[in-house]
Amino acid sequence: SLHTKSSVGIIGAPFSKGQPRGGVERGPDLIRAAGLLPKLHELECAVKDYGNLAFEEAELDGPEGVLKNLKAVGGFNQRLSQAVQLVKKDGHTTVMLGGDHSLAIGSIHGHSAAVGQLGIVWVDAHADINTPLTTSTGNLHGQPLSFLVKELQSSVPVLPSFSWLKPCISVKDLVYIGLRDVDPGEHYILKELGVKMFSMSEVDQLGVSRVMEETCDYLSSRGNKPIHLSYDIDAIDPTVTPATGTPVVGGLSYREGVYITECLRETGRLSAVDLVEVNPLLGKTEEGIQSTVSMAVDLLLGCFGRLREGNHPSDYNPPKP
Amino acid sequence: SLHTKSSVGIIGAPFSKGQPRGGVERGPDLIRAAGLLPKLHELECAVKDYGNLAFEEAELDGPEGVLKNLKAVGGFNQRLSQAVQLVKKDGHTTVMLGGDHSLAIGSIHGHSAAVGQLGIVWVDAHADINTPLTTSTGNLHGQPLSFLVKELQSSVPVLPSFSWLKPCISVKDLVYIGLRDVDPGEHYILKELGVKMFSMSEVDQLGVSRVMEETCDYLSSRGNKPIHLSYDIDAIDPTVTPATGTPVVGGLSYREGVYITECLRETGRLSAVDLVEVNPLLGKTEEGIQSTVSMAVDLLLGCFGRLREGNHPSDYNPPKP
Amino acid sequence: SLHTKSSVGIIGAPFSKGQPRGGVERGPDLIRAAGLLPKLHELECAVKDYGNLAFEEAELDGPEGVLKNLKAVGGFNQRLSQAVQLVKKDGHTTVMLGGDHSLAIGSIHGHSAAVGQLGIVWVDAHADINTPLTTSTGNLHGQPLSFLVKELQSSVPVLPSFSWLKPCISVKDLVYIGLRDVDPGEHYILKELGVKMFSMSEVDQLGVSRVMEETCDYLSSRGNKPIHLSYDIDAIDPTVTPATGTPVVGGLSYREGVYITECLRETGRLSAVDLVEVNPLLGKTEEGIQSTVSMAVDLLLGCFGRLREGNHPSDYNPPKP
Ligand SMILES: [Mn+2]
Ligand SMILES: [Mn+2]
Ligand SMILES: [Mn+2]
Ligand SMILES: [Mn+2]
Ligand SMILES: [Mn+2]
Ligand SMILES: [Mn+2]
Repeated sequence: SLHTKSSVGIIGAPFSKGQPRGGVERGPDLIRAAGLLPKLHELECAVKDYGNLAFEEAELDGPEGVLKNLKAVGGFNQRLSQAVQLVKKDGHTTVMLGGDHSLAIGSIHGHSAAVGQLGIVWVDAHADINTPLTTSTGNLHGQPLSFLVKELQSSVPVLPSFSWLKPCISVKDLVYIGLRDVDPGEHYILKELGVKMFSMSEVDQLGVSRVMEETCDYLSSRGNKPIHLSYDIDAIDPTVTPATGTPVVGGLSYREGVYITECLRETGRLSAVDLVEVNPLLGKTEEGIQSTVSMAVDLLLGCFGRLREGNHPSDYNPPKP
Repeated sequence: SLHTKSSVGIIGAPFSKGQPRGGVERGPDLIRAAGLLPKLHELECAVKDYGNLAFEEAELDGPEGVLKNLKAVGGFNQRLSQAVQLVKKDGHTTVMLGGDHSLAIGSIHGHSAAVGQLGIVWVDAHADINTPLTTSTGNLHGQPLSFLVKELQSSVPVLPSFSWLKPCISVKDLVYIGLRDVDPGEHYILKELGVKMFSMSEVDQLGVSRVMEETCDYLSSRGNKPIHLSYDIDAIDPTVTPATGTPVVGGLSYREGVYITECLRETGRLSAVDLVEVNPLLGKTEEGIQSTVSMAVDLLLGCFGRLREGNHPSDYNPPKP
Repeated sequence: SLHTKSSVGIIGAPFSKGQPRGGVERGPDLIRAAGLLPKLHELECAVKDYGNLAFEEAELDGPEGVLKNLKAVGGFNQRLSQAVQLVKKDGHTTVMLGGDHSLAIGSIHGHSAAVGQLGIVWVDAHADINTPLTTSTGNLHGQPLSFLVKELQSSVPVLPSFSWLKPCISVKDLVYIGLRDVDPGEHYILKELGVKMFSMSEVDQLGVSRVMEETCDYLSSRGNKPIHLSYDIDAIDPTVTPATGTPVVGGLSYREGVYITECLRETGRLSAVDLVEVNPLLGKTEEGIQSTVSMAVDLLLGCFGRLREGNHPSDYNPPKP
């Protein structure tokens, strides 16, 4: 078969300082409790769980201007980057369980430090590319890409908490899927830099199937780099995944969400996955929370070979009468 | 850019006499309260709100045969037609906030009186083309097109309350989207006259993207007339817009609903929009009401340039460190 | 018109012994109570209701190994096969109202005995092709196809309760639509035998429209045999049809579900329909139960000519003033 079975290294990132709502730090343990590891084993994946990255409260981390928790976010991501590099050196496909989306800073930085140039697929209702100067909320989970993208270096002020970070991705290696709530400053950046994006409008126009064809073609045209998938659960429609901090109407269906992972798995080049913004304190009902966590698990299983047509072990022996 | 920013003239039509359920007369104020005007301003639209058209109870308006409230519906629409003509003379794209769908009589008549021949896009679960002789309910919100369509003139009896009205549109300039609950007499008319229609079956077959391509091609082949969009909120699926008088299962999704407006906006020829049948008394939950009103607002914003990929002001200046 | 109006013969199969949950035996009467017959009459169908097939509790029907209720399922299906043969001899398109999906054994056997070789369209979240040796639950509603498919004869042990049954369909005449929960042993069989299937992944990739085109082309390439449609209500998404025994997330939408029936109707070769697994005791809310039953009715109406663009009687006479 085209795909050797995967070796998966899981890092929990119970981090919530990139945004103001409590609860998202519970994501990693909830996703594990929903059976992620045994289900990956069923797919014949080798799995190593590196546990949760400890988080230390930063001292004297008052806001600097509008920006919140700079020291905490900067420090946590620095250590996260190192953890990711370790997992990549162990030869695993990294799974980063968030936590809020600010952790993409460390996740992508570490991934890039370990394997070199990356293709980034960012599945999200939001563009998360505000700079520290365009943000209106000051929440760093809305800004991670501005720190990572080389072409934005001159637009981002020097911040001591991020002095360890050198921008490591080109905007030409970035593809967005699912956008539908983009700030004016972000929209300016996306158009100015010509970022490849499939907003929900393009998903409606082309269908998810052609969106994924075009996404894969585009990544191929950029040289088939290892793929970093950064999946914000709020890309999915709030009727399916209500338990998240910034839900936006009109999102991807369960099926479209899973289909995206199946296609990226098919490339054989998926090298790291972030699954972020699951916040169990924000689901209004128990069913809403379960549905959100379940979706997170199903997205990860799609990344590692689960097929909706079914799977069977490579050594399956049919019983005969 | 292709599109100059729009100038929008809003008329509220708190009218409910075209159908039997109370509540739909609250639509205009609810849609305004959900922030329509400031959100249009964000899109750099010039907006003038002409307020709500006053409605006077017609005296001695008992049913004539099966037909209900003939005097009220006839009289209100006559004044509505004049109001629309005024707004068009002021140079605005008209937004008619309903109220029930019988108001399309005055809205389309006034629009046509002001600008001449129209292309009509009727987005609705229902065909609203019963004649006073085919209707089984007698509710005039199920009959507006029969009064407006030239080809039906010989099928519609002379009614004193509508003596002011001369049919002003050709059935060849009409396109339906979203049909799924069509009466036998209506179906006979649609087939007999060969009306262009995309029922939900065609939306399933072609996808909303090709439906809109074919709709725009069809309107172009008819000479690129100014477009009148008459949007019944019940075109959308009742899981999204339950607060309406005659919900029908199997409707357009939120995304398809918005996509339709984005495509019509793109033509540059949208000249009037009806948004009708929002009835807050019929949503079983507060969420259902909010979701219905929100959908109405998002449809109108789609008509006036809001993009899901984001928008930024034409004079946006990116901040630099 | 291409289609003469249908003659429909209804058999109720209030049978639940193919699975462990009570309630599914109420399906036939609930579907009738929702107005199936008058609605078929509106479509100008001739309808004969053969009533419910009586079910006698089998004596001494303890489990044999993992297999449950072998005698009951075997005996009921033998009589069901005879009933279906009778209805087919009367010249009707058979409608089998379930009951659990184990009834497909008798329904397909009788259909094939009456008309010869069949094309089978199996719409289901599940493949229902476990053999008595691969099943982990022992429930026979997960195994009907293993008894019916010729190519599996050597994989199925001889069972006295099914001695009356000779496999009667080729796996090459079988098309699946909607699969998303397939057991490893089933998946092995599907791949080994090269069964034509459209799992939800293919529905996402191709869209339901192309899935139905390819389904019909495939059935044509196999010689345009009479079509047996076996529709498990759990093919549809649980948000629409929650009242069923084994719901699975990520199913067909209401619209896709109906579209499938419209296309099969269009072939003019629909010769029998099973509608199974409606279980009113498993809907958590009254709305969920109603929505499930309503879906069942709408699927059957789609099979017999209801169009979402509307219908009118062939002798319709438009009223004129
Ligand atoms: Mn987001
Ligand atoms: Mn995000
Ligand atoms: Mn309507
Ligand atoms: Mn209407
Ligand atoms: Mn099933
Ligand atoms: Mn089944």
